[in-house]
Amino acid sequence: MTEEAEVEVNLSPTSGSEQQAPHFLRDVIFHGKFKLLKALTPEENIHCQHGLYFQDGQRRVDYVLTYPVKKPGGGRSSRQSTHLLTENAVARSLRRGVHSRGIHSRGEHPRHHQAQRPKDSSSLPSSPVADVELGCLGETFNGQEDHKAFRREEFEGKLRDTGLELEKDEDTKIPGVGFVKIHAPWTILCREAEFMKLKMPTKRVYEVKQSTGVMEKISSLVSKVLEPLHPHVEEHQPKNIKHLSHTFSREKQHLFDLSDKDYFFDSKTRSSIVFEILKRTKCKAKYSMGITSLLGSGVYTAAYPLHDGDINEESAESNDRKLLYEEWANYSVFYKYQPIGLVRKYFGEKIGLYFAWLGLYTQMLIPASLVGVIVFLYGCATVDDNIPSMEICHPRNNITMCPLCDRVCSYWKLSTACGTARASHLFDNPATVFFSIFMALWAAMFMEHWKRRQMRLNYEWDLTGFEDEEEALKDHPRAEYEFRVMQKSLSKDQKSQHKVEKLNYQDRLPAYMTNIVMMLLMIGVTFAIVFGVILYRISTKAALHMSSNPTTRNHVQLTVKTTAAIINLVVILILDEVYGAVARWLTVLEVPKTDKSFEERLIFKTFILKFFNAFTPIIYIAFFRGRLVGRPGSYLYVFESYRMEECAHGGCLMELCIQLSITMLGKQLIQNNLFEIGIPKLKKLIRYIRSKQGAFQEEERQKKLQRYEADHFLEPFAGLTPEYMEMIIQFGFVTLFVASFPLAPLFALLNNIIEIRLDAKKFVTELRRPVAARAKDIGIWYNILRGVAKVAVIINAFVISFTSDFIPRMVYQYMYSPDGSMHGFVNHTLSYFNVSHFQEGKETMDPLQLGYPVEICRYKDYREPPWSTTPYEISKEFWAVLAVRLAFVIVFQNVVMLMSDVVDWLIPDIPKDISLQIHKEKILLVDLFMKEEQGKVHILESRTSAVGKENCSSGNNNNSTMAHQRSGLHTNSTNSF
Amino acid sequence: MTEEAEVEVNLSPTSGSEQQAPHFLRDVIFHGKFKLLKALTPEENIHCQHGLYFQDGQRRVDYVLTYPVKKPGGGRSSRQSTHLLTENAVARSLRRGVHSRGIHSRGEHPRHHQAQRPKDSSSLPSSPVADVELGCLGETFNGQEDHKAFRREEFEGKLRDTGLELEKDEDTKIPGVGFVKIHAPWTILCREAEFMKLKMPTKRVYEVKQSTGVMEKISSLVSKVLEPLHPHVEEHQPKNIKHLSHTFSREKQHLFDLSDKDYFFDSKTRSSIVFEILKRTKCKAKYSMGITSLLGSGVYTAAYPLHDGDINEESAESNDRKLLYEEWANYSVFYKYQPIGLVRKYFGEKIGLYFAWLGLYTQMLIPASLVGVIVFLYGCATVDDNIPSMEICHPRNNITMCPLCDRVCSYWKLSTACGTARASHLFDNPATVFFSIFMALWAAMFMEHWKRRQMRLNYEWDLTGFEDEEEALKDHPRAEYEFRVMQKSLSKDQKSQHKVEKLNYQDRLPAYMTNIVMMLLMIGVTFAIVFGVILYRISTKAALHMSSNPTTRNHVQLTVKTTAAIINLVVILILDEVYGAVARWLTVLEVPKTDKSFEERLIFKTFILKFFNAFTPIIYIAFFRGRLVGRPGSYLYVFESYRMEECAHGGCLMELCIQLSITMLGKQLIQNNLFEIGIPKLKKLIRYIRSKQGAFQEEERQKKLQRYEADHFLEPFAGLTPEYMEMIIQFGFVTLFVASFPLAPLFALLNNIIEIRLDAKKFVTELRRPVAARAKDIGIWYNILRGVAKVAVIINAFVISFTSDFIPRMVYQYMYSPDGSMHGFVNHTLSYFNVSHFQEGKETMDPLQLGYPVEICRYKDYREPPWSTTPYEISKEFWAVLAVRLAFVIVFQNVVMLMSDVVDWLIPDIPKDISLQIHKEKILLVDLFMKEEQGKVHILESRTSAVGKENCSSGNNNNSTMAHQRSGLHTNSTNSF
Repeated sequence: MTEEAEVEVNLSPTSGSEQQAPHFLRDVIFHGKFKLLKALTPEENIHCQHGLYFQDGQRRVDYVLTYPVKKPGGGRSSRQSTHLLTENAVARSLRRGVHSRGIHSRGEHPRHHQAQRPKDSSSLPSSPVADVELGCLGETFNGQEDHKAFRREEFEGKLRDTGLELEKDEDTKIPGVGFVKIHAPWTILCREAEFMKLKMPTKRVYEVKQSTGVMEKISSLVSKVLEPLHPHVEEHQPKNIKHLSHTFSREKQHLFDLSDKDYFFDSKTRSSIVFEILKRTKCKAKYSMGITSLLGSGVYTAAYPLHDGDINEESAESNDRKLLYEEWANYSVFYKYQPIGLVRKYFGEKIGLYFAWLGLYTQMLIPASLVGVIVFLYGCATVDDNIPSMEICHPRNNITMCPLCDRVCSYWKLSTACGTARASHLFDNPATVFFSIFMALWAAMFMEHWKRRQMRLNYEWDLTGFEDEEEALKDHPRAEYEFRVMQKSLSKDQKSQHKVEKLNYQDRLPAYMTNIVMMLLMIGVTFAIVFGVILYRISTKAALHMSSNPTTRNHVQLTVKTTAAIINLVVILILDEVYGAVARWLTVLEVPKTDKSFEERLIFKTFILKFFNAFTPIIYIAFFRGRLVGRPGSYLYVFESYRMEECAHGGCLMELCIQLSITMLGKQLIQNNLFEIGIPKLKKLIRYIRSKQGAFQEEERQKKLQRYEADHFLEPFAGLTPEYMEMIIQFGFVTLFVASFPLAPLFALLNNIIEIRLDAKKFVTELRRPVAARAKDIGIWYNILRGVAKVAVIINAFVISFTSDFIPRMVYQYMYSPDGSMHGFVNHTLSYFNVSHFQEGKETMDPLQLGYPVEICRYKDYREPPWSTTPYEISKEFWAVLAVRLAFVIVFQNVVMLMSDVVDWLIPDIPKDISLQIHKEKILLVDLFMKEEQGKVHILESRTSAVGKENCSSGNNNNSTMAHQRSGLHTNSTNSF
Repeated sequence: MTEEAEVEVNLSPTSGSEQQAPHFLRDVIFHGKFKLLKALTPEENIHCQHGLYFQDGQRRVDYVLTYPVKKPGGGRSSRQSTHLLTENAVARSLRRGVHSRGIHSRGEHPRHHQAQRPKDSSSLPSSPVADVELGCLGETFNGQEDHKAFRREEFEGKLRDTGLELEKDEDTKIPGVGFVKIHAPWTILCREAEFMKLKMPTKRVYEVKQSTGVMEKISSLVSKVLEPLHPHVEEHQPKNIKHLSHTFSREKQHLFDLSDKDYFFDSKTRSSIVFEILKRTKCKAKYSMGITSLLGSGVYTAAYPLHDGDINEESAESNDRKLLYEEWANYSVFYKYQPIGLVRKYFGEKIGLYFAWLGLYTQMLIPASLVGVIVFLYGCATVDDNIPSMEICHPRNNITMCPLCDRVCSYWKLSTACGTARASHLFDNPATVFFSIFMALWAAMFMEHWKRRQMRLNYEWDLTGFEDEEEALKDHPRAEYEFRVMQKSLSKDQKSQHKVEKLNYQDRLPAYMTNIVMMLLMIGVTFAIVFGVILYRISTKAALHMSSNPTTRNHVQLTVKTTAAIINLVVILILDEVYGAVARWLTVLEVPKTDKSFEERLIFKTFILKFFNAFTPIIYIAFFRGRLVGRPGSYLYVFESYRMEECAHGGCLMELCIQLSITMLGKQLIQNNLFEIGIPKLKKLIRYIRSKQGAFQEEERQKKLQRYEADHFLEPFAGLTPEYMEMIIQFGFVTLFVASFPLAPLFALLNNIIEIRLDAKKFVTELRRPVAARAKDIGIWYNILRGVAKVAVIINAFVISFTSDFIPRMVYQYMYSPDGSMHGFVNHTLSYFNVSHFQEGKETMDPLQLGYPVEICRYKDYREPPWSTTPYEISKEFWAVLAVRLAFVIVFQNVVMLMSDVVDWLIPDIPKDISLQIHKEKILLVDLFMKEEQGKVHILESRTSAVGKENCSSGNNNNSTMAHQRSGLHTNSTNSF
């Protein structure tokens, strides 16, 4: 009985607030007629504070649902009130209707839902099925629309049943959109906070121990120096005071500071509480429809919590969003730390962790790029002392090399390769070996630091007791999954009476097969494209060599390399988008049960595809190019006419470096900056131009919009996956081939400094506010990072030993050099070839280009000379070098892995001070409750002492005392921790 | 006031039970005089049930403390009662005394404690300091003894304050030992169970879903087949019904089945609750003394819970101990599964997990040893088809080998090595490569299976919500640590007023340095001993070769190898004991803060030392022996006279195999069986002989002993570390060198089948009952296992590629063999040596032993022949083989590691059914509480509906309703989950 009365009140906010806001009512009525009336009156402004509150100005809007309204325009406001007054009765009758219809419309309904799911919010095709169905209710005009309205009524009724308060507003400045504003009253917040085991700060504070003695002075000095790097975000409490936190419980309310109930739960918490209720509430249609199904089927078009306020508003009142905009989402503060606490307070823990992770990664890149630059500079400084390149460049060393291509190319002098030889020393020197070990340890350190940072944040954000599995419990099945299950149970119903509760392997097999086939196909496409680029390079080179223009022929190498790299880049960029879409499509096919599973599967697939896409060409250049060349006289041919490509003299490292830098820089510049900055700007521009053509100016309109209307124009939040993915691929560039490109960390650093602010801007200004999600860690991304770091060790070992000339140099110096120096190294690496041994038709057409007849030419390989008993056989040196190379790989891999493990083991996962504080907090809590209990016992004792005295001589009084005590505990009931 | 009254009652159990047990009192009085009165009267037997209950026969003995009593003998019983009556007053006065004395005895006291700490429980030297101190109280006779008595009084007083009930018994059949029996009443149990967050089964049961359809039939068939393998332990409930568990809370008592309060908490839980209280209770002496300090300083001599009953007793009542003895700790049931549930019920989770782990390990060894035997049989079967050994054995291949030692040895025919060549094929064939890959994956599977088993046990044992850190919170500092801190604060007190709270690095530096130095020293000792054995082998061999006795000379190899291996074994066995003691000593030096830290450090050190000890000789043989030999004409010499040892023809694998089998079998046979079975038997024998000399027979006495007296005679529980350590070293033998010894798993399996029952017997019959400890996992051992498994992959890769001849054979077959077969392999591996190139004075003395003059002899190496341009240089083949060997290591390591990771990733850590059930349980719990809350709301509504109706038209009634609802919740207070 009370319930009904309650609902009635909720349904009529206009009538309820009649006494309070007569001005407002007048406004609403006038509004329909005088659309251009300048702005809201000041009173109204105060009442609902730009739409942040219900129209009574008291109740905060915690969440907004939007739905399509068929008839936009005037006359709505009067309709609204009657609608509101009658809807309860209608809803009740409709609920019956839905149930009765549920029987004879089985089967058609869901299909129609599925068909319309993909974005049918604006266009509303009225399917004939729905029309027929609804026809029996006698409402033939636009049956689908009304059908949705019934669903909404039902859902909103259920929401009211849970205690939420709703206010509808169809008369907005956005035509065709109706808003349902949701407010969670205090009791509901308390109940749900208890259910969600939210940890809230108690009244009890304690002092966080600062380090003492010398350490204190140092830390205070450091913090003074770093002062300007901290954002100007006022902290509510002194740094060394922390509130003891405890899981919120209505029974322990006395522990918490409830003096200001409006602000005890902040807006993020309020909205996530409402979202919890929304997720839990189900319409009992054919299959239970939660909010996701309702959104998917277009019953509602959007669901979002409100932003805290406007960023550009010049009002005196500051809000968190504005603060974030000024102190965080701003390129001018790029050098500062991020106000992570505030980010978490506004966006929740999951997004807070992303930015904390990004911040730590960027911070960690500083030392890496410093060392990288030093390594690069070392290369620059020692380029003139490098004996091999000196030997190559020295004009006296008139080494005649064999032709680089068949027929059209001629013999050439090694000294012409002087430039590349000197350049490759920049990236191929002993310092790079050190650097790749350094980077492997750096990666291990990064992981460890992140674990510690995460732990620290968990402590600061009161997540220490929170378990992820509890979150998983609340992870309801996805709408698509439920729909599939229902479909299956319908088709099974004819055969058996068993209720189908889940999809088994049989149901999923087709999707899994498609997945595997498509994944292999996509990877195949990547390989094919890499092969295509190789063919392009080989054929273009051959063609250009045949060109009669000498300048063209001189720049063959440069032209081919650059164009090929650019083609590669473009292909990578295009495929990146394609693969993203394919991965999503494949994951949708799989119908994962929960959102978490969906996300993980999507991430896994996207990662695999994008990783292959980004790194296949690079891996080809690093490990395969120039290996499968054959030797003069018996070259390897592709399609029997194209010779496989060789690397320029000085190893393939140089080419790897070029490819890497072009791919990495190009990806970052184009994908991040052009796509992420440019496209939103373009969109805005288009919108601006359009609004100019409209009835009134966009800006004017913006000002007058209520908060929930303004937020409706923003893009919905699409998850953190793309942001993380981008960074992980970058992490791959930074670690995987760092041996060949020591400047990678620097480029990554520069990119990330922009990236942080770019993402921040996006979250603060361009996206609807995401529902705050609790998370203790970054989930699957951590494992992917670990995997990349592991693979990086092996790849770097191979790059150093096989791609670079490090090992041949070492072997020469310590095994073959007559005087222990590098003199003669170049000669040692070149084998002899007797030009008379060229195959028929493959010899050069211009044998006298160098001005003298050539009998013996040289080529880079370890092979027996023509005059040995086994000419052109692989020589002993080859095997020796190979053995040393392989030994280096084993040693490098195991040593670096061991060192990483040692780093992992030496650095404790939980920072010492945090673990001490967690311990202390727990002890304080135990103390608190102990005292409480003792207090109770004390009161009891004084109360029962008289009784106790009476029977203290009997043997059983102990038990009775205890019983009393227990009953006392029962009435007070504060000791259930 | 009540408190005191209560204590009074507790203190006088004899007076309290006067009405109930007059027989008993008479007995006590008679007892003193008629010591040989046959046994307890039947009444008494019923009352205190052989000492399991207090003398009122009602209250269970949950824990026992023992202390030394100075004056044993008659007349005690009368003293006891007066003592009990006055002790309260005495205690109070003494507590004052202790406090006042605390001031002027600062500094002397702790030293005296330290001096007496190591086992001074039996001999009680009365230090002059203590005498002087106590002199001021006027009690000069045996001051130390009384001082301890004061401490006891204080401690027992505090225990009574916490609500425990105590009963003293100094008049036992064991002279010189007093017992304090502790009973925890129901209220205390409840309070502590709530504090410890014990999960207890609720009344609510639910059905565990069984698999359906075909799976159901299969599983029922399997369980029918396995029926005889299950132990006959009756389960209390049907298998598919499980009680929903919930953390015990006094407020939610209605959830639990409290019909039988005596058995709601089982004896294990009761004793661990009492132990918790004991740990928490501190005497406030100079430094707070907990039970560990009191035990350490000899105030108490022992503390233990009681066993459930006697194993040999023929009483009708069965108890868990007896059941365990019959169905578990029994060699005759060796083929059965262990009753892990019962083990856990009796000994607690930690010991339960050990036996579960041991069981799983043994189970997993079955397939491993099967495959191992098959691999071995494959070797046996193919020994006659093995071309290399056929070539060696064929008499036509008259290959003349270079002498094996200088001067005394002569040239020899390769065909004499036929036997070893054939034998080494047993362990060196392609199947071993497969087997070592198999074993690496087996190890990964084992880890995964263990994780799953652990998870399943966690679920079955209701540990899913339990966090280890909560346990850590209760981990009080160790007595030694507190003592050191106090010492430090005393020495600092003179300088500053700061209270020292912990030891810093300065304090620990000496201990750490000692640790590092000692560890290095010990490892150095191991190396030195291995080197010593090498020297023994070399010198003995040389000496025996010089012997004139031809039979001696023929059996040189066998004699030397066997004796060396036995010496090694003996050294390993001795050092094992030494290292165990050294590790403990070093850990004591370190003064770790908590017991957990102590255990971890001890384990770490012991593991390092024992691992080095067991595996250094084996690693030497596998990887170094025969490598550093030099070549004929330029051998390597130790001490300039002893040539380094070579391996017999056919690789060192054979020798590795011998060494491994002797070490492993010897260690297992001697250490486990001789030490673990023999020594306790010997002890018993000695005790038996001694008791024969005593006043009355041991057996007679045993019968008459109370439970707590009988348990006092048992050995105290010393932790699981030695048990685990033994198994980990065995795991090392099974995995590390499995490539060379495929029978290792079989031997391990045979050993473990005995080991399980041996350990079980020890726990059930020979040890005092350990205090049950909760644990979710096996802790550091899992990490050690992982580490061993990881190292195993690398070591096996090296064994296959370097120790075995697998790679040279492959290389020959695919690179050098003219017809692709193994024919000619032996010849290929032997290099040529021109005997004229022998160094002066090193050539053989008997060049004509073979009957013909030798010009060219052969030796096993890849070197250039004497006639090449670079004679005796390492040949191209050497480098090729080396490169392939190294490549194999890289491929093997990475492939196996990847496969292990895939296994890790494919097998979910939580079994599907368990995760479903955990989920279901949580949902059921939520449901339960939701319903409860709704029920309350319902009651409320009907109560408040009248009020609600009155003001249902006003806008604010919602709030008031909610307020009512809240207050309702408050009075009921059951929804704090």
